[in-house]
Amino acid sequence: MNNFTFFNNTRIIFGEGQIAALREQIPAQARVLIVYGGGSIKNNGIFTQVTQALEGVTWFEFGGIEANPHLETCLEAVSLARAEQVDFLLAVGGGSVIDATKFIAAAVAHQGDPWEIIASFGAAVQGALPIGCVLTLAATGSEMNPTSVITRASSKDKLFFNSDYVRPQFSILDPRTTYSLPARQVANGVVDSMVHVLEQYVTYPVNARVQDRFAEGLLSTIIEEGPKALSEPTNYEVRANLMWSATMALNGLLSTGVPGDWASHLIGQELTALYGLDHGQTLAIMMPAIWTYKLQQKQEKLVQYGRRVWHIEDTQPEQVALKAIEQTRQFFERMGVATRLSAYGLDERVIAEVVAKLKEHQFVQLGEHGDITPQDVVNILQLAL
Amino acid sequence: MNNFTFFNNTRIIFGEGQIAALREQIPAQARVLIVYGGGSIKNNGIFTQVTQALEGVTWFEFGGIEANPHLETCLEAVSLARAEQVDFLLAVGGGSVIDATKFIAAAVAHQGDPWEIIASFGAAVQGALPIGCVLTLAATGSEMNPTSVITRASSKDKLFFNSDYVRPQFSILDPRTTYSLPARQVANGVVDSMVHVLEQYVTYPVNARVQDRFAEGLLSTIIEEGPKALSEPTNYEVRANLMWSATMALNGLLSTGVPGDWASHLIGQELTALYGLDHGQTLAIMMPAIWTYKLQQKQEKLVQYGRRVWHIEDTQPEQVALKAIEQTRQFFERMGVATRLSAYGLDERVIAEVVAKLKEHQFVQLGEHGDITPQDVVNILQLAL
Repeated sequence: MNNFTFFNNTRIIFGEGQIAALREQIPAQARVLIVYGGGSIKNNGIFTQVTQALEGVTWFEFGGIEANPHLETCLEAVSLARAEQVDFLLAVGGGSVIDATKFIAAAVAHQGDPWEIIASFGAAVQGALPIGCVLTLAATGSEMNPTSVITRASSKDKLFFNSDYVRPQFSILDPRTTYSLPARQVANGVVDSMVHVLEQYVTYPVNARVQDRFAEGLLSTIIEEGPKALSEPTNYEVRANLMWSATMALNGLLSTGVPGDWASHLIGQELTALYGLDHGQTLAIMMPAIWTYKLQQKQEKLVQYGRRVWHIEDTQPEQVALKAIEQTRQFFERMGVATRLSAYGLDERVIAEVVAKLKEHQFVQLGEHGDITPQDVVNILQLAL
Repeated sequence: MNNFTFFNNTRIIFGEGQIAALREQIPAQARVLIVYGGGSIKNNGIFTQVTQALEGVTWFEFGGIEANPHLETCLEAVSLARAEQVDFLLAVGGGSVIDATKFIAAAVAHQGDPWEIIASFGAAVQGALPIGCVLTLAATGSEMNPTSVITRASSKDKLFFNSDYVRPQFSILDPRTTYSLPARQVANGVVDSMVHVLEQYVTYPVNARVQDRFAEGLLSTIIEEGPKALSEPTNYEVRANLMWSATMALNGLLSTGVPGDWASHLIGQELTALYGLDHGQTLAIMMPAIWTYKLQQKQEKLVQYGRRVWHIEDTQPEQVALKAIEQTRQFFERMGVATRLSAYGLDERVIAEVVAKLKEHQFVQLGEHGDITPQDVVNILQLAL
């Protein structure tokens, strides 16, 4: 096990009816900006629950945060927050809304060009407005971590930043808020949370037994419950188990003392920024391709994963590893998320563009060994066609 | 899954050499009281590492905290802390030292009789000195939770209190600090951390899949690594896995959304207070007896535990449950911790005394259903003879 520091001070308030707890979490004299997405919360009753809980508090609203939130949209919210002297941000939505809210929180407090926040990967953040969340999609884990991913649409740059200043003070997780999601978002969320676990688990062994067992526990849960979320969308227990899995998948716990891969995310981000694929779709494409390309390096953990999570009983390690990759691909497909570039109308012409963007972003040493070069990405993308 | 709130803001700094990080965790102008136990830290180099890291900081020391720390001893430390105008407490030791430090932190800030802190189960705590920990024993989880257990020796009362005010700001976990522990303490620590998991897991099912899988992962790790800590005391990986397991076993994560039992702890506390048994010894006695007595109520989770953790393949559920109890008992015995009252020279004469103390403390509705009455405790203790 490697040395590590673990710190996470987000308060999680979990369960049905918990949106009412907003009342105790936000100061009565606060000036709150409610940040949300395409407006579904106004149709499904969540907005009403939120504003009822905020009775007596001064609030403003900013809707229209898109998936893979745009810098350009966030800057409009920054202007509003400044004009209204907002001092608390409440994200009501999924990972995109929360990520946007984190950027807005940092940008309101930032002097100079707000893009510096992202270009510095968060190092330029010296403060932020406090943030609370009402989560409505089990997927990114943003509700309990210090990370935000923002897209500058004008230049097709999708990049992340980290800062403890933007870690949510609290997040309310009511599984019922996810009942009315479209199947595509549910499926993407299942793939996303599963890949978060896998990025921190299918690397190389460091004898970190708790972290491995926790990862396997989350994977088993997601695999058991994910398909049920599609077939039984209003099954509370299913939604609750998936919601808690997604939060635990990326709240810092699994990464303690172990290497991380993250190549699927970094290559996938370019696919989203360039071609508009959903985040979950890019992960479903990239992870099997990277694993296939890195089979030897990853074999030991792939075998552990195959045996413990997929119960593959083959005695040949390489066969177990290959079957684990295939089972993962089939699971993504079963969730309705295609795992080949060609399924999204993309072909080998994308390869040069993706690699050029990775170089521009200086992502030229990817993976847990930092040994995936741009040429390797070319080979990996060929496996992903 | 039941509704829950989860919050834990202790910073964990884990790994070899991390005691040096104390420097960044304690304000330079602080007046620090170092609290420790029987003095082994002065022989094994830990005290030197701590004071080197505190170079330039004003510090005082209070040694002599006993196992199951006494109110009377803690009050001496409170006097010293007040006299020296200490404003930061640094616990260097295991759970007893940390628990004592939590009480001292609250008592320094408390007006009136300090026993009120305990008699109110922590409700009387309105503030506390900040606390940091250097953990030297994998066992109680006190390094990352708001709980403290204190014994008033004069009246043989061993009771706990909870307060967010006494949650450690940080805890440094260097597995090397545990290399020189006596086997008895190591074994007790393994039993204690395992029972912490089991108290939150062997209850009744609420379809909390993540929590169950996490519990099973910790149990598997403790069962795999516990015996190695006795046979290979300087195996870093073993010590690291046990240390992280013990912390995760009682930091609030496993209890999210699930019922808790805690009858073994509450009855066991009386055994320690009355007869001086080690905490781990009392748990090893009580848990198999309670499970045997509550076999029907607990059968479903015992079967899950038996199948997933002990890989018992019997098809008869009751047989699986009985074998799971037996495997647990054998594991405790294999660790060198006897599981019968008679092994510690106790007989049926203790039953009335234990029950009287439980009644005095108003612990008359124990277990996850609150249905273990004093008469049930009589029956359970008979099974534990």
